[in-house]
Amino acid sequence: MTRWKLTIEYNGTDFCGWQRQGHGTSVQQTLEEAIEKFCGEVVTTHVSGRTDAGVHALGQVAHADIAKPTTGDVVRDALNFHMRPHKVIILSAEEVPEAFHARFKALQRSYRYQILNRRAPSALLGDLAWHVHKNLNIPLMQEAADILIGKHDFSTFRAQHCQSNSPIRTLDSLTITRENELVMFDVKARSFLYHQVRNMVGTLNMVGTGVWSVADFRQAFEAKDRTKGGPTAPAHGLYFCGVTYPQDHEFPIE
Amino acid sequence: MTRWKLTIEYNGTDFCGWQRQGHGTSVQQTLEEAIEKFCGEVVTTHVSGRTDAGVHALGQVAHADIAKPTTGDVVRDALNFHMRPHKVIILSAEEVPEAFHARFKALQRSYRYQILNRRAPSALLGDLAWHVHKNLNIPLMQEAADILIGKHDFSTFRAQHCQSNSPIRTLDSLTITRENELVMFDVKARSFLYHQVRNMVGTLNMVGTGVWSVADFRQAFEAKDRTKGGPTAPAHGLYFCGVTYPQDHEFPIE
Repeated sequence: MTRWKLTIEYNGTDFCGWQRQGHGTSVQQTLEEAIEKFCGEVVTTHVSGRTDAGVHALGQVAHADIAKPTTGDVVRDALNFHMRPHKVIILSAEEVPEAFHARFKALQRSYRYQILNRRAPSALLGDLAWHVHKNLNIPLMQEAADILIGKHDFSTFRAQHCQSNSPIRTLDSLTITRENELVMFDVKARSFLYHQVRNMVGTLNMVGTGVWSVADFRQAFEAKDRTKGGPTAPAHGLYFCGVTYPQDHEFPIE
Repeated sequence: MTRWKLTIEYNGTDFCGWQRQGHGTSVQQTLEEAIEKFCGEVVTTHVSGRTDAGVHALGQVAHADIAKPTTGDVVRDALNFHMRPHKVIILSAEEVPEAFHARFKALQRSYRYQILNRRAPSALLGDLAWHVHKNLNIPLMQEAADILIGKHDFSTFRAQHCQSNSPIRTLDSLTITRENELVMFDVKARSFLYHQVRNMVGTLNMVGTGVWSVADFRQAFEAKDRTKGGPTAPAHGLYFCGVTYPQDHEFPIE
């Protein structure tokens, strides 16, 4: 039995999210069915960060235990073959020790939220960015974002259905940059509350468009009350970008 | 009667190309139908660069004469409304003098060709980049590309059905850059032969993947014979990026 670390890219548009659910096709189901087609084994995959319907991934990580003797290149290419035409791609498959766990061993997760910030909608980025047509003030949004760095109670940005025991999280970084018409929010933390990134972005957007001041933002954050926060930014601007693990798990075994 | 300069973005995937044809939906038809819905006028638009099926645009330019008194913001927003759900977007509509002509007054056109250069296909860029899985040598391709700069006979890169009188063109620039897994070819010239950019990219790709040397490339180019060139790169990696005009046509009249 070999444990495989799978690094995965997907377009979340056509999926009900990562997790198997009663309705719709999930990324997990697509992946597990491809594994069964590849090796005839019924496998349960474990993922670093479950994503919602519409959320994309550039570097999602999952692990799976497969008995069939094989190589990383074969796993990657075979799963990519069997997952077609679904928009899920294995970027790499690496052999890892049995102690590796995609979810429990993660040290840091990173997300990117992408906004198309211009008057006209996009002919090319429809499902790949949130379209905000009012001009965003990046320095003001960054000033507000800086308030969130560190260990805090993030109840203001916590979705009602969040299953976590605690609203306390440590936000390692949140940087906002503009590249022409695209505004990117890059966020890193060990873990996030349910909808935390989308709620932070939706609330920072209130500052960026001038509806709220930075003081309003701080007050909302310090209220530790979801009803005091801004709206949830839509799923299709969000990308799960990557995960870091302790170094001994980062490289395949030779 | 006012002449409007329209700057247009589109996703070429679902279109038979810019021009009206017997089959399929064209960008031109989509635009002209929207203009008719907006002002009740049957208008023929003139475009800077007709693009093929599958080719995208970030800054296509067309002009149209409209009798109805209106403003640029209204033209832009109204046409965007009427073109939905087609993936065509007016980025701006500017009033220009009667002497302006999107095609005949163009001084320089720019295209970008985008390659996704990695082993795995893409879950996100399917119709937006050509997937080349062999690693491309950028400096070697740039060395070959430099041979093309200036005034030359481009017969090696000229499609059979090209309607131009002459195979002579002046290539102003062709720069190749890599940003992580994306390789971009940025090409500028006053005008291009039919399929010239795609044929240049397809042939440069022979150099980048090591099938051809730079000397082979030079020989093919100097043969002035399409059958000596490499294959035509697929349409879906190509973007019509922009046009420059004489300065007195570049700005709207106040």
